[in-house]
Amino acid sequence: MKLRPLHDRVIIKRLEAETKSAGGIVIPDAAAEKPVKGEVLAAGTGKIQEDGKVRPMAVKVGDIVLFGKYSGTEVKVDGQELLVMREEDLIAVVEK
Amino acid sequence: MKLRPLHDRVIIKRLEAETKSAGGIVIPDAAAEKPVKGEVLAAGTGKIQEDGKVRPMAVKVGDIVLFGKYSGTEVKVDGQELLVMREEDLIAVVEK
Amino acid sequence: MKLRPLHDRVIIKRLEAETKSAGGIVIPDAAAEKPVKGEVLAAGTGKIQEDGKVRPMAVKVGDIVLFGKYSGTEVKVDGQELLVMREEDLIAVVEK
Amino acid sequence: MKLRPLHDRVIIKRLEAETKSAGGIVIPDAAAEKPVKGEVLAAGTGKIQEDGKVRPMAVKVGDIVLFGKYSGTEVKVDGQELLVMREEDLIAVVEK
Amino acid sequence: MKLRPLHDRVIIKRLEAETKSAGGIVIPDAAAEKPVKGEVLAAGTGKIQEDGKVRPMAVKVGDIVLFGKYSGTEVKVDGQELLVMREEDLIAVVEK
Amino acid sequence: MKLRPLHDRVIIKRLEAETKSAGGIVIPDAAAEKPVKGEVLAAGTGKIQEDGKVRPMAVKVGDIVLFGKYSGTEVKVDGQELLVMREEDLIAVVEK
Amino acid sequence: MKLRPLHDRVIIKRLEAETKSAGGIVIPDAAAEKPVKGEVLAAGTGKIQEDGKVRPMAVKVGDIVLFGKYSGTEVKVDGQELLVMREEDLIAVVEK
Repeated sequence: MKLRPLHDRVIIKRLEAETKSAGGIVIPDAAAEKPVKGEVLAAGTGKIQEDGKVRPMAVKVGDIVLFGKYSGTEVKVDGQELLVMREEDLIAVVEK
Repeated sequence: MKLRPLHDRVIIKRLEAETKSAGGIVIPDAAAEKPVKGEVLAAGTGKIQEDGKVRPMAVKVGDIVLFGKYSGTEVKVDGQELLVMREEDLIAVVEK
Repeated sequence: MKLRPLHDRVIIKRLEAETKSAGGIVIPDAAAEKPVKGEVLAAGTGKIQEDGKVRPMAVKVGDIVLFGKYSGTEVKVDGQELLVMREEDLIAVVEK
Repeated sequence: MKLRPLHDRVIIKRLEAETKSAGGIVIPDAAAEKPVKGEVLAAGTGKIQEDGKVRPMAVKVGDIVLFGKYSGTEVKVDGQELLVMREEDLIAVVEK
Repeated sequence: MKLRPLHDRVIIKRLEAETKSAGGIVIPDAAAEKPVKGEVLAAGTGKIQEDGKVRPMAVKVGDIVLFGKYSGTEVKVDGQELLVMREEDLIAVVEK
Repeated sequence: MKLRPLHDRVIIKRLEAETKSAGGIVIPDAAAEKPVKGEVLAAGTGKIQEDGKVRPMAVKVGDIVLFGKYSGTEVKVDGQELLVMREEDLIAVVEK
Repeated sequence: MKLRPLHDRVIIKRLEAETKSAGGIVIPDAAAEKPVKGEVLAAGTGKIQEDGKVRPMAVKVGDIVLFGKYSGTEVKVDGQELLVMREEDLIAVVEK
């Protein structure tokens, strides 16, 4: 069973915050609005512009992304905690 | 008797939250804004854009969708509890 | 004496909430924002778009519609309690 | 001395609420947001659209209109209490 | 020394509220949002539309205008109390 | 060292409020939102319109301008207290 | 490991506020909304306009910029405290 996000929504699997290390991204534990890292599991077809055209997504399945801690809505699929949010809630893509 | 939703509204029949199982979607009971699963019973013709054109709906009758727990307005039709909401309140379509 | 609603407004005569029966729509009594059923007595010519064109109404005189309990403004015409609201406050049309 | 309303504003002379009678419109006394009936004494040239064009007014001098009780700004011209409001504050025109 | 208002702003000199007389406009003293009469001393070139074009002003220097009591910002130029506000804060022009 | 304001921002050096004199602009001391006079030290290239084009600034370096007392953000450059604000926060240009 | 900001976001490394000196920018310590100086480490491809086109960024990697003290979201990359914000949160570029 799979989820197909509508429009500009993405489905994200949270990745554990890494501890400080070479090349690792450290998310401060106490920050109230700390960003969170995750992997894009599914992405919509894109945001519908005011003229009705679809703007392709800037992220794709497999991308590692940063987003706000409280962004999105949590869903459980196949026993796995996932997040659904809009592309505009994404802050940055972690380049590999 | 049937309801014809206006513009970008959809009429949805809630589906019971499933327990954790193979391929099942589990909606956490305690989440304040937990998503809910439902089946689209009727859909409007689409959202009217600012230029007056109608944007076709991204969901169709029979689709299983996720939405926010408090989204929409409840109506009773033929003794059946239904939900009316806008397409933009829908989060994702569950692919079969 | 008749009222001609401006632009995208409609004039509606509330219909009594029916009790649960075959084919009847039951409006729950205790819901804070329960929808209400009514008949469209008059409709404006349509909403004026940002480009100045008029978008025809999606409902017409005689349509039975659902709307939010607190939508619209009440007026009394010929001793009859009526409601004036915008088309966007309408939720759905009851198909006959 | 006359007032020329700017853009989409209208100048209105309130008409007394009529008591319940054949063909009379009765404005309920106790309603917090009760509509009020008035006559259009002057009307602007129309609302300026986002593209700079002027949209002609939907009401004209002499029209009897309904509006919200607290809509508009009161002015006194020649000892006469008048109301200045925008066309969008008007609810409906009473057809003669 | 002169002020050149930017875009759709006007500079206005308040005129004293007249007492009730033939052809005089009477501004009620106790009204919380009572309109005020003034003369346009300077006007900007016009509001810049979303497409970048300038929409000419609907008032010109010398016009007598009505506006809300608390509209605009007060400035003193050459010992004279003036008001700076946007054209959209103007209600009507008093025709001579 | 110089600051280059982005888009429609301007950098302004406050000018002391003058006392009442021939041709002087007097800023009332006690006004809560009293306008302030300043000189434009630097100006951005202009506001980016919704269609992506740049709208040239209506003020230029050297202009004496009026603005709201609390408009803008204060910065210190070379020990000099400056203000950074948007062009739309400017009220008028003082013509020389 | 690098971060690629989405759309009109920039990644910034805060620079210490300098004390008052020749050519130095002094950020007042007590200001509630004091601007902060930083270096642009990465920049998105640009803001997506309403017509779907991408508007190029007005800043580039290496630019020294001023921004509001509380602008953006803090992230830690390789043990380095960084800021992610939108281009519109940037006030000015410090010219070298």
